[in-house]
Amino acid sequence: MPHAQTIGEPDDGLSTRQRRLRPILAVNTGEGKGKTTAAMGTALRAWHQGWSVGVFQFIKSGRWHPGEHAALEALGRLHDQTGEGGPVSWETMGTGWSWTRAFSAETDPAEVAREGWRHIRELLAEEALDFYLLDEFCYPLTWGWIDVDEVVATLRDRPGVQHVVITGRNAPQKLVDAADLVTEMTKVKHPFDTGQRGQAGIEW
Amino acid sequence: MPHAQTIGEPDDGLSTRQRRLRPILAVNTGEGKGKTTAAMGTALRAWHQGWSVGVFQFIKSGRWHPGEHAALEALGRLHDQTGEGGPVSWETMGTGWSWTRAFSAETDPAEVAREGWRHIRELLAEEALDFYLLDEFCYPLTWGWIDVDEVVATLRDRPGVQHVVITGRNAPQKLVDAADLVTEMTKVKHPFDTGQRGQAGIEW
Repeated sequence: MPHAQTIGEPDDGLSTRQRRLRPILAVNTGEGKGKTTAAMGTALRAWHQGWSVGVFQFIKSGRWHPGEHAALEALGRLHDQTGEGGPVSWETMGTGWSWTRAFSAETDPAEVAREGWRHIRELLAEEALDFYLLDEFCYPLTWGWIDVDEVVATLRDRPGVQHVVITGRNAPQKLVDAADLVTEMTKVKHPFDTGQRGQAGIEW
Repeated sequence: MPHAQTIGEPDDGLSTRQRRLRPILAVNTGEGKGKTTAAMGTALRAWHQGWSVGVFQFIKSGRWHPGEHAALEALGRLHDQTGEGGPVSWETMGTGWSWTRAFSAETDPAEVAREGWRHIRELLAEEALDFYLLDEFCYPLTWGWIDVDEVVATLRDRPGVQHVVITGRNAPQKLVDAADLVTEMTKVKHPFDTGQRGQAGIEW
């Protein structure tokens, strides 16, 4: 049966309890499916702990993940009504984040992406949330819209115990180096390879 | 931005609508983390569609995934109360499945696993559910507790549109060959490598 294996004890002077409160930076990357879905699964764990969860999707259009959105939104609502689990907030880049009216459909998406990161950086500084899911965040990094060094420095210096999960293909090496946990989803076989179309409930 | 790519149209005589109702057999395998969490994320999509979701965990003890369990159970409860989403059932092998009292802590786990598969085979024949998550199911297959050929034949011949997701390391080649979608989670880096322990809300 599967179980976690630890390779010795780290020599860092921390107690087990302190070690258990280490903020984690996780990256899901690779060509295969499941990067975002796995991150959403991790968000379920965070919700169960009563943590405040924030999802930030760095996509302009297309794969909105309505299934996961609806489910996590329902769980957030359940928290608001009954106190079960934790609060959930969900932001999608689209043509502009909810906290600002500064953008339109014609705004350069690079600018919109940068505003998203600026806002997240602010939240991190304030220790506003317990769990941040930066979905498809690798793209603005790869395309040079957002500076990787600045992101790595911000994440490295973030205060408190704030967990961050970043998803997207081709995660920059510097981000991989800075992360605690990196998983690569490799596509072995996919129905799209034989020309099949996606289905509701499976692909979204 | 990421988007699905189809390589030509399949020449199978089906309409797009019919092609969109193809039952999917998906396998999440590999050494990395995220196999089960990604499957749980897919279960959120199924729930959103209003499908009946059944989770069957083929683990005797240990990694119960309490976070995902609590979240999906809450979503199932929400369905029962408000009609939102779909119904969710959750079974764990433990020392015996809920539908039978035939087992005790001393029963050979191979026998318990086989009973689990027997029950699922029955559900598939009856078209009882829309979405089946067979978590850690690769282990009883790899260890020879359950016959791979029989599983492949059953899945291949299953009636209706019943989606099945199977997770676990070292998925048998015959299962991979039979599957529509196979993703391999590769571990690039993990905190356990440096002796760090798991945390609630991240690892479970």
